[in-house]
Amino acid sequence: MSTRFFNLVEDGMQEVEQLMRLQVDAHHPDLHTVVEHLVSSGGKRVRPAVTLLTGRMFGADPQRLITLAASIEMLHTATLVHDDLIDGSLLRRGIPTVNAQWSPAASVLAGDYIFARAAKMAAQTDSVEVMQSFAEALATIVDGEITQMFTSRGISSRDNYYQRIYAKTASMFVLATKSAALISSCNEGIVETMRKFGYEIGMAFQIVDDILDFTGEQEAVGKPVASDLRQGLVTLPAIYYQEANPDDEDMKAVLNGEFADEARMERLVKAIRGSGAIQDAFVEARGYVERSLEFLGQMSESVEREALFELGNYIIDRQV
Amino acid sequence: MSTRFFNLVEDGMQEVEQLMRLQVDAHHPDLHTVVEHLVSSGGKRVRPAVTLLTGRMFGADPQRLITLAASIEMLHTATLVHDDLIDGSLLRRGIPTVNAQWSPAASVLAGDYIFARAAKMAAQTDSVEVMQSFAEALATIVDGEITQMFTSRGISSRDNYYQRIYAKTASMFVLATKSAALISSCNEGIVETMRKFGYEIGMAFQIVDDILDFTGEQEAVGKPVASDLRQGLVTLPAIYYQEANPDDEDMKAVLNGEFADEARMERLVKAIRGSGAIQDAFVEARGYVERSLEFLGQMSESVEREALFELGNYIIDRQV
Repeated sequence: MSTRFFNLVEDGMQEVEQLMRLQVDAHHPDLHTVVEHLVSSGGKRVRPAVTLLTGRMFGADPQRLITLAASIEMLHTATLVHDDLIDGSLLRRGIPTVNAQWSPAASVLAGDYIFARAAKMAAQTDSVEVMQSFAEALATIVDGEITQMFTSRGISSRDNYYQRIYAKTASMFVLATKSAALISSCNEGIVETMRKFGYEIGMAFQIVDDILDFTGEQEAVGKPVASDLRQGLVTLPAIYYQEANPDDEDMKAVLNGEFADEARMERLVKAIRGSGAIQDAFVEARGYVERSLEFLGQMSESVEREALFELGNYIIDRQV
Repeated sequence: MSTRFFNLVEDGMQEVEQLMRLQVDAHHPDLHTVVEHLVSSGGKRVRPAVTLLTGRMFGADPQRLITLAASIEMLHTATLVHDDLIDGSLLRRGIPTVNAQWSPAASVLAGDYIFARAAKMAAQTDSVEVMQSFAEALATIVDGEITQMFTSRGISSRDNYYQRIYAKTASMFVLATKSAALISSCNEGIVETMRKFGYEIGMAFQIVDDILDFTGEQEAVGKPVASDLRQGLVTLPAIYYQEANPDDEDMKAVLNGEFADEARMERLVKAIRGSGAIQDAFVEARGYVERSLEFLGQMSESVEREALFELGNYIIDRQV
């Protein structure tokens, strides 16, 4: 990452990654390889970066902050391992998933293991409130996955969508910003403002992710274009498209469960990409970013606050 | 259960079960059915009983204690759901597992969901030490499962066995007794003594479970006799048998991975059942119980202490 946002926490991020690697005992060589692989393949590291910047903005103890950031990234990683298993995904960011390399049984345990380590690190922050937030975020994420599995397919509903992306993504950003404020002994008002900041920026992040699922090239995203819609999950661009074109036959068919008709799907994805739906979704993501910056603007000036301001631009402008 | 041990906490146990049921939101009807099923099918409830008795012995706040006991039983339940998935078990205690009723994906999520609720309840005890112990126990359990998956099959080793049953069972008893002492604001010495009590009683409990796997009738246990050995897992009766009969050809073959030869397996199980190995394992279990009672004897007299003394007899004498 070349933005100042990431540069400012590069040193801390190295410590976070080192701590993540340290969580895997050497006497599990197979697991060690898998976690090493997960840590190295990296991803965007937005969650620990937000955690580090928020904590530093408020003068958090550096070691507790590193532990918290590692805990949050490990929790995120654990949910990805189980997600890939549940979806049967073989690639993530173009790299083979744990699921593709191991048996389902081993993937369950790998996720559980990473999750257990995340919980241990959360406990090491020595804050009851952080651990409560951690448990809350985990419950929200899993609830969302269960709702998605049982009731979300084929539903074109904003309410359903917002609940889904809150559970999937914004809840973890809330955990990051709220916990970082909590270990910095901020007063309740600041903790609450930073919680709101995390919520808005997290919602924006997922909306842009969902836009990129339509606009991105398969090679860059590491999965087929419109991968959600192909599984019957209707994200914001498709919702805007459906609202603007309520009689579109392809969309109707997909909402009725016909995800497998490839010709139909390609036609629909092309129509969505060519419609104003993408732009509408971007406008909505910008709205979330703008609200997030209003909350952030209530904090005192600092270099970390400026870096968090930049996060908004990064989220809107990123290509992957 | 008809023992005084269970009678004394029957009221509390009802509250624990009610709290467990309350953890599942009504808007997940499928999951609700599954958890209801898990809670109703019950099992022995030894862990929450130990938790309740220990906490009451030290005057713990009743509500915190109920929450802690429910958290520990939920954690135990979550590990069983993932265990059954990993082992492909279709029955537990003669009742269809989650794995048998749901897809693997749904079983992963059901386990994660129950686990998340366990973590939330642990967080509600408002004790950093309890949450650290909870995270520690979870890590120990998952580590044990991973070791078992990758390295334990076909190994007839006491060290490997003790590590395995500590991770699988005693760690949860340690969590129960230690956490119950912690929320009662016991001094460090008492917390440590109760931790040791939990360790010894937990080891005894698993050894007797492993004996019953050989001596029990299939109908009572709800799985085939010697189910562990059939998966290549060598438990204490088999270890004693192997030590006394180092040249037994059937045992050698099984240790070499020939678990699937049914005639051989039946011959070997019959030989173990008819040997002194069963009695030797019982003697060892009694040793653990006796040590546990020595630790317990250091506590002041109380009706709960007497009930915990009885637990030792229950563990040795139970048939299932």
